[in-house]
Amino acid sequence: MSAVLASNSYGKSSVRLTKVTRHADRHELKEISVDIQLHGDFDRSYTHGDNSSIVATDTMKNTVYALAKNHPLIDIESFAIHLGKHFLANNTHVTQADVRIAEDSWQRIEVGGKPHRHSFVSGGNEKRTTHAACGRDKTALNSGLENLLILKTTQSGFVGFLRDQFTTLPETTDRIFATSVSANWSYMGTSVDWNGCFKRIRNAMLDVFADHESLAVQQTLFAMGEAALKVSPEIYQIELTMPNQHRLLVNLKPLALDNPNEIFVPTNEPFGLISGTVKRK
Amino acid sequence: MSAVLASNSYGKSSVRLTKVTRHADRHELKEISVDIQLHGDFDRSYTHGDNSSIVATDTMKNTVYALAKNHPLIDIESFAIHLGKHFLANNTHVTQADVRIAEDSWQRIEVGGKPHRHSFVSGGNEKRTTHAACGRDKTALNSGLENLLILKTTQSGFVGFLRDQFTTLPETTDRIFATSVSANWSYMGTSVDWNGCFKRIRNAMLDVFADHESLAVQQTLFAMGEAALKVSPEIYQIELTMPNQHRLLVNLKPLALDNPNEIFVPTNEPFGLISGTVKRK
Amino acid sequence: MSAVLASNSYGKSSVRLTKVTRHADRHELKEISVDIQLHGDFDRSYTHGDNSSIVATDTMKNTVYALAKNHPLIDIESFAIHLGKHFLANNTHVTQADVRIAEDSWQRIEVGGKPHRHSFVSGGNEKRTTHAACGRDKTALNSGLENLLILKTTQSGFVGFLRDQFTTLPETTDRIFATSVSANWSYMGTSVDWNGCFKRIRNAMLDVFADHESLAVQQTLFAMGEAALKVSPEIYQIELTMPNQHRLLVNLKPLALDNPNEIFVPTNEPFGLISGTVKRK
Amino acid sequence: MSAVLASNSYGKSSVRLTKVTRHADRHELKEISVDIQLHGDFDRSYTHGDNSSIVATDTMKNTVYALAKNHPLIDIESFAIHLGKHFLANNTHVTQADVRIAEDSWQRIEVGGKPHRHSFVSGGNEKRTTHAACGRDKTALNSGLENLLILKTTQSGFVGFLRDQFTTLPETTDRIFATSVSANWSYMGTSVDWNGCFKRIRNAMLDVFADHESLAVQQTLFAMGEAALKVSPEIYQIELTMPNQHRLLVNLKPLALDNPNEIFVPTNEPFGLISGTVKRK
Repeated sequence: MSAVLASNSYGKSSVRLTKVTRHADRHELKEISVDIQLHGDFDRSYTHGDNSSIVATDTMKNTVYALAKNHPLIDIESFAIHLGKHFLANNTHVTQADVRIAEDSWQRIEVGGKPHRHSFVSGGNEKRTTHAACGRDKTALNSGLENLLILKTTQSGFVGFLRDQFTTLPETTDRIFATSVSANWSYMGTSVDWNGCFKRIRNAMLDVFADHESLAVQQTLFAMGEAALKVSPEIYQIELTMPNQHRLLVNLKPLALDNPNEIFVPTNEPFGLISGTVKRK
Repeated sequence: MSAVLASNSYGKSSVRLTKVTRHADRHELKEISVDIQLHGDFDRSYTHGDNSSIVATDTMKNTVYALAKNHPLIDIESFAIHLGKHFLANNTHVTQADVRIAEDSWQRIEVGGKPHRHSFVSGGNEKRTTHAACGRDKTALNSGLENLLILKTTQSGFVGFLRDQFTTLPETTDRIFATSVSANWSYMGTSVDWNGCFKRIRNAMLDVFADHESLAVQQTLFAMGEAALKVSPEIYQIELTMPNQHRLLVNLKPLALDNPNEIFVPTNEPFGLISGTVKRK
Repeated sequence: MSAVLASNSYGKSSVRLTKVTRHADRHELKEISVDIQLHGDFDRSYTHGDNSSIVATDTMKNTVYALAKNHPLIDIESFAIHLGKHFLANNTHVTQADVRIAEDSWQRIEVGGKPHRHSFVSGGNEKRTTHAACGRDKTALNSGLENLLILKTTQSGFVGFLRDQFTTLPETTDRIFATSVSANWSYMGTSVDWNGCFKRIRNAMLDVFADHESLAVQQTLFAMGEAALKVSPEIYQIELTMPNQHRLLVNLKPLALDNPNEIFVPTNEPFGLISGTVKRK
Repeated sequence: MSAVLASNSYGKSSVRLTKVTRHADRHELKEISVDIQLHGDFDRSYTHGDNSSIVATDTMKNTVYALAKNHPLIDIESFAIHLGKHFLANNTHVTQADVRIAEDSWQRIEVGGKPHRHSFVSGGNEKRTTHAACGRDKTALNSGLENLLILKTTQSGFVGFLRDQFTTLPETTDRIFATSVSANWSYMGTSVDWNGCFKRIRNAMLDVFADHESLAVQQTLFAMGEAALKVSPEIYQIELTMPNQHRLLVNLKPLALDNPNEIFVPTNEPFGLISGTVKRK
């Protein structure tokens, strides 16, 4: 019998770094985690243990630190592209460099009503993300966010769904809707106001979620995607994943109490998982 | 041989609930997780499997839901006391009821610059906590917070420490100081403006952290505790735990680069763990 | 502007269940977590909030419980296919049902050297997995494992790799090799001795890992894949992902001590991530 | 106002290390995580930022590595004592050194039915633990285990408990009993066959759990503690914590199916938490 290598890639994941930029009046703080995956002709390492084409993953780590030193790191997108192009430029046998970056959220501590110049408090688990897929001919740039945890206490219902022998769920015109949004949008080019675009998309999605009368998680997802496309001509599509973080109405009747949509139990599992990709017509 | 029961307690943990209070102009949202532990004469359950003195932990869960229904839940402290007293009042063989509550942080989504009436976004991992230790004679009430993740990029040093055969750490007068604060303060009574007190203490600690010139994590901890006592006459002591979330300066010399306090690696472990309790003189 | 739905799917995730089968001489225990995702014509739910084609995810959950009741659940593969086909058979507008199952590992407690008839101890974090992609024309069946954490203390080296301006890693002919294997293999058909095949593949991979003289993680990955193909004619390819769980040799020289490959620090991040797919020639 | 330091301690946590001992016929592998906390006269660091009495936590980390190099590390208990005494001996102002160690479980891979000489597979999440509280006058040594996840499918009931207005739980004479045991036992001295004692206690607890007819988690806990004391004269008490990992019987009646104790849902929360300390009479 003989086996062959059908596909492969390798790299370094979770290269974390903190960059402090010391301006006279304030410090800028950036904390990111970088994942690198290279594609190319590495077959002989797999089949013969011949590492002569292998960029050590330790070298990738060093490269992230070194390039971060001389890059302004104003946004993660331009740094991801910069990293990806470095690996292509220095290694002719590499066909594609995938660089993914996740950025932690830090906010300035307010002291006396003013943002502090060098002290910060965590903005929570939400992460801004990007993925630069840098090939020889083109760079595809996707950005997004993860763990955007949102909840509305009303203006959400779910009626008219299919009923079969195993359906027990009652229809409802008023339920809690909570979800942890992951979004991933695709840019048309690589010369973009990355930070401005991120803010516009995030705000547009929050506005829709807050004000929208939801007839289904699916409908809200589509409306949020539509809003993102509307405020950001720089992108051509957006993929949204919205796990339903259920809040179940507690049955208080056995305890001789009414429960007019007041007391709920949050549950982690099982959870509905709703996905969709919205693009321009 | 014979064995005896030296001590025991039992209860229900992680009873999560969401309470929505529907005012005409806005909805209030409270998400909490409740832990209950009862102490008392339960020995025969342990030694003989005789459950006649056992309040089922499932009943505790139901009790949390039922009491939450008819309690305003403006603050976790008064609900914790209410729960603890319920178990004491209904079970003469219970000597102490420990009720611990952790509250998730939710903030209103801002739409058009205004806080939304019923839509929320997560405030992150930070939790507000309380512990009501309700005994027959007295109730001891501690409150605090967990996972308050803060970082300052300067005004932190560490010099003059002991050096022995295994010391390699260089002294530094300028480092990043990051920590995830846990605080636990002790109230003198049980009739307090709980929400106001919480805000005063949290703000006071943040102010000190931000502006303080830190000579040691220990010193900052003490100063934060001192500030908490100052702004809150309602408490008599505060215990602080501050794990040092190290940001290590990357040695870029092998990469032919300087690193004047710009590029750091965040590490999760090992970590310094600094604790202290500050009380009024 | 107008937007369209480019693609979509939805379902229920993390439907956990325990099945106990009570034989006269012993109980069988199965603990699984099921994820279901349906593809098909659900567009009007997204675009118009019209749920008339929506199988509620709550119904999916009930279906898992109901079908588990009357299925022997000897292996996760046949149950996944059974579930997938149910959703296709009952919903003509569904084009594909993806059912993923992860199985927890339980081992019988040994009492007096004999496996107990109804008492079990956890086998750890390793999970056996399967994915049945059930379409109208065919069912594609992949199985695998996750979190197979393995370590060898010698017979692993890494030399001859590329060196550039940012390379600092020394070559080594003797290092610790630790990894948490994820494997995912593809079956040619759907009538297979699933349990036997799983055992053969897992054992073959462990044998290679243990005895192999590793010149690179890549080489070991390929050799493990090759061995899996060899012992299991039922599969045509296997995808392996092997994150390198580094053990870094501690530099004890500053502490005036030698360290001849004795003391290492395990680190979680950053980590090398090596992937490859091996197929029959 | 003035504040004083009521108590304090500090140290280094999660100092992970791997020790490989290379015998001619086999390698021994030990992976541990060490926490150190020192108590003593460190007040001026807190109150004045004067670090002249501070052993840097970085030095503690180095000390762990250095002492591990020259210690056989046959068991975690003797290493914990060795570490604690080192800090006392080298720092006259330290009054107590608390050293806690958790050991990962590794098992040899079996190749051809024989344990491999240098290749290992994870034994899961269960950890063996110890805590040496080393004071000037005495050393108190506690050991134990964490995350011992066990389940029995029958011979567990729960009847005769209190019923009040909020009780809805039905009595049952046959349920699944699953728990993740934490045990912590106290040794009379510090000269003990640590490994032998650990095995005896763990086995005795498993035997009782497996064979015991449980009338309450409390009763099983006590019986397990009693068994531990019986097989190990070296200890004088044992504290057990047994969170109830509920498996809830699924109500299949709405799905037109019976469920004679066959299909259960595992839930993580809320969970019963049962604790007790058993000592010699």
